[in-house]
Amino acid sequence: LPRNPKTPKATKIPDVVIDRLPLYTRCLVLLQSRRREVVSSTELAGMSRVTPAQIRKDLSYFGRFGKQGRGYNVSQLLGELWRILGLNRHWRMALVGVGKVGRAILDYDGFANQGFHVVQAFDVDHQMVGQKLASVTIKHVSDLEQSLLKDPVDIGIVAVPAVEAQAVVDALVRCGVKAILNYAPLRPSRPPDVELRQIDPVLALQSMTFYLKPLKEQGKQR
Amino acid sequence: LPRNPKTPKATKIPDVVIDRLPLYTRCLVLLQSRRREVVSSTELAGMSRVTPAQIRKDLSYFGRFGKQGRGYNVSQLLGELWRILGLNRHWRMALVGVGKVGRAILDYDGFANQGFHVVQAFDVDHQMVGQKLASVTIKHVSDLEQSLLKDPVDIGIVAVPAVEAQAVVDALVRCGVKAILNYAPLRPSRPPDVELRQIDPVLALQSMTFYLKPLKEQGKQR
Repeated sequence: LPRNPKTPKATKIPDVVIDRLPLYTRCLVLLQSRRREVVSSTELAGMSRVTPAQIRKDLSYFGRFGKQGRGYNVSQLLGELWRILGLNRHWRMALVGVGKVGRAILDYDGFANQGFHVVQAFDVDHQMVGQKLASVTIKHVSDLEQSLLKDPVDIGIVAVPAVEAQAVVDALVRCGVKAILNYAPLRPSRPPDVELRQIDPVLALQSMTFYLKPLKEQGKQR
Repeated sequence: LPRNPKTPKATKIPDVVIDRLPLYTRCLVLLQSRRREVVSSTELAGMSRVTPAQIRKDLSYFGRFGKQGRGYNVSQLLGELWRILGLNRHWRMALVGVGKVGRAILDYDGFANQGFHVVQAFDVDHQMVGQKLASVTIKHVSDLEQSLLKDPVDIGIVAVPAVEAQAVVDALVRCGVKAILNYAPLRPSRPPDVELRQIDPVLALQSMTFYLKPLKEQGKQR
């Protein structure tokens, strides 16, 4: 039987393993929509671009899902991964910063579809306070701590300029927020028990240029 | 002396190593702004949240940067990393999809600051064609291949809905684009010589919920 992820033992699972689980769930959702009942680690590997050995190792942290030579039961594995990741729950989020990025976040359907709901939003701009965007009324950032202590959230989304990001992260942490999605282009410090994920397109671009040959060196010959 | 990253030998450097290099450059830029001349792998580790041993191993792929017990010369290491990553160049990008996400990308200063310039933009909406946003005139997506063959770009940014993403990626690949930043919530297929980075906030959120205890289970006691 899979272990309970809340036990101390299970918390030693490497972060990189946890990071890959949502990817597997997406592949399994796709397989389920195609009415597939069983999938091999090889096929799952082809879909997720992770090696079959890595998939088997990742899933072994949570117990025995597959049977040797018979593959994984799609619905059962999906159900377990959803339970492990808490994806069948309703997660409450606070958005800090309602500029261009913040508005795109408020308008994005993809979050609520997956159980992630922005229930509070804050900005420094007094002109925006009181405005309602995507059913959320914007409050002033000076009310952040009072609002979140009264009406807590699970996740904070930081969409403020780089110079303001650390102060916002600190305030969220003081309000007991344990998971932060950061769009500001720097890595804020936070206590070890607070999870933080960085959405950073510039870092992503910079990690690709290594592989590129600039156009001028190619003489635009392609 | 550091190896030339264009040699076949150097292309065997693991992708995860390349992914960490931009992070080191950010830390070094910060150190340089503080007029620091030398940094130890331990200090760099504290700033980048990578272990000192990992940093030493990562940098060893590119030659001998540090001296045993004396740390790294900040300017020299930064210069080498910039050269290796091609960050001192001007990179031309095409944006496909000028919806909310696409507009946020066009408006974002952080790209051009780092040498990444959106020089072409495409959308399916005929109403938007001819409009000028952030000095780029939007063209219809049906003109994509003709425009990019005439006026090539280094990098493609995909900001279209999930169902359209694969076709856009295929078109970019046909135009010789070798690096793609994908905002659509799925992993498109592409040839092995095409780099792709996924900007996926939902996957990021789903990888954090594992660590969270839902508010209701806590009785909102925080």
